[in-house]
Amino acid sequence: MTPTASEFDRMWAELAPVGRGRDGGYRRFAWTREDATLREWFTAEAARRGLDVTTDRAGNQWAWWGDPDTDGPGVVTGSHLDSVPSGGAYDGPLGVVSALLAVDVLRARGWHPARPIAVASFADEEGARFGVACAGSRILTGRLPADRALGLADHDGATMAEAMRAGGHNPEQVGRDDETLRRVATFVELHVEQGRGLVDLAAPVGVASMIWPHGRWRITLDGQANHAGTTPLADRDDPMLALARLIGEVRAAAERRGALATVGKVQVEPNGVNAIPSRVTAWLDCRAADEDAVRAVLADLADVGPTEESWTGATVFDADLATRLSGVSGRTTHSPAATPRTRLTTGASTAVSGPGASGPAVPILGTGAGHDAGVLSEAGIPTAMLFVRNPTGISHSPEEHAARDDCLAGVHALADCLAELTR
Amino acid sequence: MTPTASEFDRMWAELAPVGRGRDGGYRRFAWTREDATLREWFTAEAARRGLDVTTDRAGNQWAWWGDPDTDGPGVVTGSHLDSVPSGGAYDGPLGVVSALLAVDVLRARGWHPARPIAVASFADEEGARFGVACAGSRILTGRLPADRALGLADHDGATMAEAMRAGGHNPEQVGRDDETLRRVATFVELHVEQGRGLVDLAAPVGVASMIWPHGRWRITLDGQANHAGTTPLADRDDPMLALARLIGEVRAAAERRGALATVGKVQVEPNGVNAIPSRVTAWLDCRAADEDAVRAVLADLADVGPTEESWTGATVFDADLATRLSGVSGRTTHSPAATPRTRLTTGASTAVSGPGASGPAVPILGTGAGHDAGVLSEAGIPTAMLFVRNPTGISHSPEEHAARDDCLAGVHALADCLAELTR
Repeated sequence: MTPTASEFDRMWAELAPVGRGRDGGYRRFAWTREDATLREWFTAEAARRGLDVTTDRAGNQWAWWGDPDTDGPGVVTGSHLDSVPSGGAYDGPLGVVSALLAVDVLRARGWHPARPIAVASFADEEGARFGVACAGSRILTGRLPADRALGLADHDGATMAEAMRAGGHNPEQVGRDDETLRRVATFVELHVEQGRGLVDLAAPVGVASMIWPHGRWRITLDGQANHAGTTPLADRDDPMLALARLIGEVRAAAERRGALATVGKVQVEPNGVNAIPSRVTAWLDCRAADEDAVRAVLADLADVGPTEESWTGATVFDADLATRLSGVSGRTTHSPAATPRTRLTTGASTAVSGPGASGPAVPILGTGAGHDAGVLSEAGIPTAMLFVRNPTGISHSPEEHAARDDCLAGVHALADCLAELTR
Repeated sequence: MTPTASEFDRMWAELAPVGRGRDGGYRRFAWTREDATLREWFTAEAARRGLDVTTDRAGNQWAWWGDPDTDGPGVVTGSHLDSVPSGGAYDGPLGVVSALLAVDVLRARGWHPARPIAVASFADEEGARFGVACAGSRILTGRLPADRALGLADHDGATMAEAMRAGGHNPEQVGRDDETLRRVATFVELHVEQGRGLVDLAAPVGVASMIWPHGRWRITLDGQANHAGTTPLADRDDPMLALARLIGEVRAAAERRGALATVGKVQVEPNGVNAIPSRVTAWLDCRAADEDAVRAVLADLADVGPTEESWTGATVFDADLATRLSGVSGRTTHSPAATPRTRLTTGASTAVSGPGASGPAVPILGTGAGHDAGVLSEAGIPTAMLFVRNPTGISHSPEEHAARDDCLAGVHALADCLAELTR
């Protein structure tokens, strides 16, 4: 076994039990006990490698190889350690583990980076607790104002400010962090693919071209609470019937407009077996390769008055950087799918361009999933993403998976990219 | 103001703040802090009247005027103090308050009951916390075995045994309580009506003829958890779509079969905005004037495999007792709807018979709502119910209401019934 493989196994085994539920899914919400354990783990891994750990105003963690304040801004790689409810092991942690291993690979090669390198672990990427995805990177770049962030409340009514304080982070310092942003010259995030684009291309690793425009909307369906056992059908104002209609309309609109639209979260009040609900709240997630399709879905649902909770336009990553890293990654991973020249749509991932003329390169794909990389890119930081093949395409589920060999190919591709960017 | 009215106002004002939410609805679940406050209130009200309080093996409270162990079994009246989530103020508490006031009325009249009288407050009638309605009376009569009851878990995984212990009740003594049952000769429960039967009949008070057969079923809809932003529509196995179909089918079946059927409770896993759910669980409440209609609805839904959580056949109250109490109540309440001879169906309440020939009587109605009175009746105890008019018919909602004058008419009707039964 290579040192990289054994280190991969060690770190993976250490992370495995943290926040794992009975169904094998993870519950690693921001500023919880599990989150604190993951933060300690990150600090210990950084210390093991002699990296200097800082925590920014938003609560994101950075482990520096070299000093960006004296040697100039550096190349940052990393992802997040938090999860959706009952999430998979790979979404987030694979990027952090691969970043740490890429540092090991570069050092084993005797690499002397021309500029600092950092491994980052972003806070609250999934937004599972407070409802806003990429909260850590959005606070960092100022996209999410501090007062709005701190006032967000979780299901039990605890605010992010209270949760941060309980997690040992001072909410009074929260806000856009220019000192940290100045240290970042380039950001590269490695992530497990969340579709089957790489499976269809028979490639272990790919590079991202863009993140689809995407948003979240809340839909409130009001009715009249009443006793289920005594209220005649004709006298009912039952919002559960409105929910049923909404779910069907969302699916039909998505099909009609060529978008992805999902009702994944529902809250029923009072949610009693023998009570006609007073209110049903449903949340809509909608994305598409272009913004017009998303807006068309929303227009189709105008009757129920969706309230926008978040919106992110299309994020097109730095095209030159993507092409360059595609070529560099290809040297290590020896992708058998040499030159996919056609536009390939798998519903979720879209291969938009082949490699450069310089030799075997990895595919370049679009994705429907949002990432911290998208937030940093929007803030003007040259940003790229590497994807690692997901054999089933399943994500945000205990069944999310990536083969160990593909993960190791991702580590080496990432190391090559970091070397390219720190020549 | 009469002494009865001022006592009613005092007790109502004392109960008003206990477990009241921001929307004005009540959350008074079994064996919680709110429940403990209500139990202390009941004990204090009994002490104020010199009644002897006992708690039975199931945790139900009894306040005795006279000693049933030396003077023979007594006439019991009462109801419950717990609520559904976001419930109304009247469902349950009106019966307990009216029972205490009826004792006051009888004493003010200098009444010497020929047998003991008790006021009862049943535990966990709504089943809002552990999912089984009338848990206190069902444990008392043995209908709900102790081991099944104690193992029921609430939303946070706490068992009824743990909850009882936290509430100061020893779970080891839980079980059918013959000693208590032997003390009960007759039970009369006063309750706010949960439909508009009495509104249509222009009567402040009525007597129950029967409780419709009713039950609860759980329906599990399994799917495949996946990322909402990356999974093509065609690749999805989304149980939310199955929920939408189910809600529509439940309504259609209820209309077709002349039953009441409701999906009032839904649980989505993992319930994340950007996650296609792995599972949606829905609960069905179904009732009708006859069992065949309920069974026909269930047969219509056989495809989704409903699992029965509870079932109660039709409960026909003692017809002689109902007629007798209808006549007695009529003497006090002077119901303007003198002799409704036709069968009157309002969907929820059904007037099935008029008064006796002896004079003005109150209407006798059926109801779709389950009650502790139904459980005691099934156990062979001669049982009756009095209903107090509900101007909107709304129940299990913060808007549930009864006019103060109607409540006071109910108290006097109940006092007359107790006098009749303890001559």
